[in-house]
This record gives sequence, structure tokens and C-alpha cells, in this order.
Amino acid sequence: MTSATPNIRLFVENDLVSDQEFLIDGNQGHYLINVMRMKEGEVVALFNGRDGEWMARIEKTGKGKAAVKVLGHLEDQAEEPDLWYLFAPVKKARLDYMVEKATELGVSLIRPVMTRRTVVDRVKEDRMRANAIEAAEQCGRLTVPVIEAPVKLEKLLADWPDDRLIMFCDEAGGEGDQEILPVGRAVEQAARAAELDKWAILIGPEGGFDPKERQMIRSHPQAVAVTLGPRILRADTAAVAAISLWQSFAGDWQ
Amino acid sequence: MTSATPNIRLFVENDLVSDQEFLIDGNQGHYLINVMRMKEGEVVALFNGRDGEWMARIEKTGKGKAAVKVLGHLEDQAEEPDLWYLFAPVKKARLDYMVEKATELGVSLIRPVMTRRTVVDRVKEDRMRANAIEAAEQCGRLTVPVIEAPVKLEKLLADWPDDRLIMFCDEAGGEGDQEILPVGRAVEQAARAAELDKWAILIGPEGGFDPKERQMIRSHPQAVAVTLGPRILRADTAAVAAISLWQSFAGDWQ
Repeated sequence: MTSATPNIRLFVENDLVSDQEFLIDGNQGHYLINVMRMKEGEVVALFNGRDGEWMARIEKTGKGKAAVKVLGHLEDQAEEPDLWYLFAPVKKARLDYMVEKATELGVSLIRPVMTRRTVVDRVKEDRMRANAIEAAEQCGRLTVPVIEAPVKLEKLLADWPDDRLIMFCDEAGGEGDQEILPVGRAVEQAARAAELDKWAILIGPEGGFDPKERQMIRSHPQAVAVTLGPRILRADTAAVAAISLWQSFAGDWQ
Repeated sequence: MTSATPNIRLFVENDLVSDQEFLIDGNQGHYLINVMRMKEGEVVALFNGRDGEWMARIEKTGKGKAAVKVLGHLEDQAEEPDLWYLFAPVKKARLDYMVEKATELGVSLIRPVMTRRTVVDRVKEDRMRANAIEAAEQCGRLTVPVIEAPVKLEKLLADWPDDRLIMFCDEAGGEGDQEILPVGRAVEQAARAAELDKWAILIGPEGGFDPKERQMIRSHPQAVAVTLGPRILRADTAAVAAISLWQSFAGDWQ
């Protein structure tokens, strides 16, 4: 085993165990051979979301593919935060951005949610998954977030699991008797009251949810309204802010 | 005074007091008349960073300009968080983005810092200021952050004021005897130890500070190293995360 630390991390589906040999082709093979111009004898780091991270050596290269041999173990598979990220997609470029950021920030699941104000009516899940893989490789995490198919807000709420809380940013601020707390206090308080510890963060479309939707979300027993300060945040800013805050209070940034 | 809430907020330099009349021209006039096609009798909200927010009515329009009359008071000038945002600029598009996000997130001052790894050698302050004004108008804040000229890291640290702490993200993690804390604990602990309550956040270039620079920052008595979790964050993600966390622990998101 070489003592060099690999510069390249790749996500693969294959099992990772010492001496395992397999072929890397497709997108990953193209990246290794055509883009990064890796050669026989060089090493890469591989992870698959199950077996931790392993060093592997390139044994043989071909056109856009490489035969690799798994060498030693670099990192154990460890538990990563269980946080769902649900958002109303806006434009395609922003969609890529949202998936990348959410992955960097350590979410475990990403799902687009269609609202009345959502502009994009078709979301490419393959593209989202490719973005998530690339972002996971670059940020050092040992899993790739699950990408779920887009769902309408009503259905999302109707089918919502019993064991998970939903944090949503209420841009309109506190109305009536429902208190709007900062993220830290909301996380602590809601978790204690509901005796639940799984969370999702729901980020609305640019311009916010419409009044009917806001009411629908607020009346869900597991929904927790939070405020992200007195200024209006764009959807992408709100997403990074909310996830960062959750990681600080309940995730692996503590 | 009309009871309609103005849709448009504009930053102006003029004093704002009831019955004051002045001309809006230049960029702002162009925006009002040519882009938004505002007409006589319509209202806008104005702020200048000193007098709070005021409603004003368009009395007369011309080519790319409007004569306005200040009507009533909408919001008091309130204290806003005192937070400096210092960052190593990367590419032009990212620079625009960094200024917009920092403004949305409520910083009071923005300054580019040149490091060895900084790619951009010329930063357009006028453009930064225009971006800051637009972001301030859109997010609802009552001030525009001060834009300072770019400065080299060594000079920034050499001239650093006595009364302000510098939070910096140490991507390399804790080395030796210097503890790296999460933002919340770092803010609380450092403020108590130093008896200072003013802060700056320093975000390094993509790829991080080089070892000499990191050492230089760490050895400054007012520098506080923080960690933003176990994953590698891009500079723009780190910026939004760090500022959001500071706002939650020490700013106006509490």
C-alpha cells in the first residue's frame, strides 16, 4: 500500500473490501481516465455509502475505464446526520446549486416539493443524483444523499411519517397565536415536546408559500415554524442557513 | 398618505423627513422609470441608512428620473448587527454572490482580503457597492453595508483594531494545543474571555489559507478558530453558514 493520500475520491456501487477487484467505467471511468488522466499504479479513494472509505490502486487503464484493486481501509463508515431536505425548485441552475449545497451540508435525503408558486414543472432526478454524487465526493462525506422523486406539497403532508418533525421557515412571521422561534430554540423545544428526534427542513419557493399552503403546513401536527431573522432571505440563502443551524443544534457540527 | 404598501424599496442618499422633495435620477431613477415603469401618484419606500424607512410619492416623471415627495414614516432606524465580513475573492460572479449574500444576512461591512491563493487581482468596488445596495433594498434592511477597499492579509492583521474579534474557519482542524470549537461555543467563550463583543468573520479562499497564512492568523491574539463541521465546505457555503451561525448566537436572529 502506498503511503500517498489519494487526491481523488470516487463514489462507487461496488462492495469495498481488501483485494477486491472491479472495473470503473461509465461517468466515473470517464472522469478518472479522460478528465483526470490517471495512470496505472496511481491511487484513488473509494466509498460506497456502506463500507467506509478505502484506498484503491489502478491496475490497468482503458478507454474511459480503469480496473482497480482495493487495498487498505482509510475510514470507517460512521453514522451521518438524519436530515431530510425538502424544497420548492426554482430554476435549473438553482436546482443544481441546492442539491450541491445540501449535500455539502450533510443532509441524508433531498426531495423537490411542488407548490403553487413553483416555476419548474419537470425535475431531472438523474441530474440531481449526479450532482449529489459529485458534491459528496468533493466534500468528504461517506454517503450520497437519497434523491426522491418530486411530490406535491399536499401529498407530502398527507403521507408524512409519524416520527419526523418538519421545520419550515415562515416568512410572514408570527401570526395569531402561533409562536415563531429561532431555529435553536425551535429544535430544542419541539423535540422535547414531541419526543421525536428526526427532522426535515422545508424551504418554500422564491416569494414564499401561498397563504393556503402556509396554513396547510402550519396545521400539520409535526410542523415547526422557525424564523431566520428579520431580513428577507432568498430561497438558496435560507436553505444553507437553516441546514447549517440545524447541524449546529442537532447535527454533527456540535 | 395612501394606505398602500409600496412594492419598491430604494436606497437614496438624501435626508428623509416629511414633505422633503428631491429628484431621483442616475441608476435609481433609471430603475424606477425605465425598468419598473412607475407613474405619477405611485408610491415607493425609501431608506438612507440614517432616518429609517419612509413612504414617498412620485410627483412628476421624466426620462429616467422622478421627482418625489416624502410622505410618512414607515419604520424607525434601528440598530443593526455590527459584523464585518472579510473574504478572499475568487471569481467575479462569486464576488457578486458573496456581496449579495452577506448583505442579505445583515453584515455591516464587507472587505475583500488578498491571500496567496486569491485568484482575482482586481476587485471593482463600485460594482460591489451597487450589488450591496440592490441586495439591501430587496431584503428589507435599513442600511447598506460599508464596502472597504481590498487589503492584503498581512496588512489587515497588522492594522487590526483592538476591540474586535476575528472568527476564522480552520479547515485543517485542530492542530497542537489550539482547540477548534463550533461557532456557538467559540462566540460565547471568546467574547467572555476577551471581554469584547465586536466580531468579524474571515473566510479564506477556495482551497483554504496556505500554512504560513494560517499560522499568521492563528497567532493573532484576537483570532478565534471555528469549525463548520466535518465536511469540506466551499467558500460561499462557509460564508453563509458562518454568518448565519453568528447571527443566531450573537446577532439579530436570536
